[in-house]
Amino acid sequence: MGQVQARMEAALARLLPAPEIAPQRLHQAMRYAVLGGGKRVRPLLCFAAGELAQAPAERLELAASAVEMIHAYSLVHDDLPCMDDDALRRGKPTCHVEYDEATALLVGDSLQTLAFQVLAEPALGTEAGAQLQMLRLLAQAAGSRGMAGGQAIDLYSVGKALSLPELEFMHIHKTGALIRASVLLGAHCGAPPAPAMLERVSHYAHCVGLAFQVVDDILDCEAPTATLGKTAGKDAAQNKPTYVSAMGVAQAKAWAESLRLEAREALSGFGAEAGRLRELADFIVLRKF
Amino acid sequence: MGQVQARMEAALARLLPAPEIAPQRLHQAMRYAVLGGGKRVRPLLCFAAGELAQAPAERLELAASAVEMIHAYSLVHDDLPCMDDDALRRGKPTCHVEYDEATALLVGDSLQTLAFQVLAEPALGTEAGAQLQMLRLLAQAAGSRGMAGGQAIDLYSVGKALSLPELEFMHIHKTGALIRASVLLGAHCGAPPAPAMLERVSHYAHCVGLAFQVVDDILDCEAPTATLGKTAGKDAAQNKPTYVSAMGVAQAKAWAESLRLEAREALSGFGAEAGRLRELADFIVLRKF
Repeated sequence: MGQVQARMEAALARLLPAPEIAPQRLHQAMRYAVLGGGKRVRPLLCFAAGELAQAPAERLELAASAVEMIHAYSLVHDDLPCMDDDALRRGKPTCHVEYDEATALLVGDSLQTLAFQVLAEPALGTEAGAQLQMLRLLAQAAGSRGMAGGQAIDLYSVGKALSLPELEFMHIHKTGALIRASVLLGAHCGAPPAPAMLERVSHYAHCVGLAFQVVDDILDCEAPTATLGKTAGKDAAQNKPTYVSAMGVAQAKAWAESLRLEAREALSGFGAEAGRLRELADFIVLRKF
Repeated sequence: MGQVQARMEAALARLLPAPEIAPQRLHQAMRYAVLGGGKRVRPLLCFAAGELAQAPAERLELAASAVEMIHAYSLVHDDLPCMDDDALRRGKPTCHVEYDEATALLVGDSLQTLAFQVLAEPALGTEAGAQLQMLRLLAQAAGSRGMAGGQAIDLYSVGKALSLPELEFMHIHKTGALIRASVLLGAHCGAPPAPAMLERVSHYAHCVGLAFQVVDDILDCEAPTATLGKTAGKDAAQNKPTYVSAMGVAQAKAWAESLRLEAREALSGFGAEAGRLRELADFIVLRKF
């Protein structure tokens, strides 16, 4: 994990515009928002799926960078005063607090553009048709029928009691779509993946994506701010429906555990080459931050 | 012009998610921001360049839709309170006034994603390598070293007196980059364009892009709000450096005229197939709104 995280830090630092290129303040803020923080869960998933597909690391680091840029853009916009209005992220002041709101808006916008640009570069080195498919995968996961749509549902759900299927619908969009894209992009970085293989890793990704959110909800009400690197207790304070509010802590924990086992079960047809994916299912559910 | 505008309205209405798809409010707001308004200058330029390149209209309408979605996203974000804080756009309340700030933020985000998705679809029907090049063209034009970078420079220039080269640098990014991309994408929708042809239309696009901004600055201080469909006199009120503030109205008008002639001169090697591009240079400079 440490190796992939270090590799990603270097790749992102290289792909982001240098801080001395005009407009400097925007480029500095983009680097601030992306570098030096984050668990890099999505890149880890991308690399793990890439191991299954025997994909070259040079290719995986570009695909994973694109996903991480989309993720970082969504955090910057999500933290803005008109959305979650949060001051702390990854243990640092949020982008609009460190810089200003207008800059943070443009940081998110520019990070999204850069994600698609990176995935469209010849450096990716896949066959052009496969590359277009990866671009479509990322766009579907990020857009109004994916992550951004999930944010909207989240926004319109404040103060409402959602049923469990409604909650799941929200999170499959808000977090699940991009996590699934991370895994699928990794799988697409190798030889053209067989449909049966894609189906299994896709089911794995579905379980892991949901588990990630269930655990996030549990940690939000159990872990301290210092450990999380972001404001704890935010969901309850903002009156947001969560798995904890919908089913209670004990049942949420049991459900996260069953999702972990289901994710591992989805990989049962694979051997040691799926080892990293199995470990990540454990990491995502058993993490304490 | 009316034909292309009607065709674009239909294409955009088809490509945008239907208003009854969840999350409905987001999709309704996306349609509100894009449909039923705007001069569609960028699509017109894309189609005009496509005529030069003998490109099929089905392909042009997808490329032009992608550009127009990027343009619409930039307007929605630019109108937000933390940016220009404007209440009127295309003769209607701005997106955040009609809906709310958080929705407008997600509308812009989702429109940008959709632009890249449209350009990555197999429906475009170009050779995959050429399609990737079009994606890179659009990403470079939209990102932090293009349009979004220009917005940042604009933001950081409020209250400053810019020199003419600084003003030009800002506008080449803020407006020029996407206008150039509109023309080049149109040219790429036909047979693989010759470098000499690209160089000439690129120079045309540079002149037209700058002229567009010079005229915008003139209209902002001369035309009434009702004609513009957006708040007039905004630049002076917000203390923004413009061509009018930098060189005066008379010289700005003379310069717009010389850019129009230079744009037409760039096309002198072409025949009737460049007719629409010539007409658009005239339209952009001689328009009254």
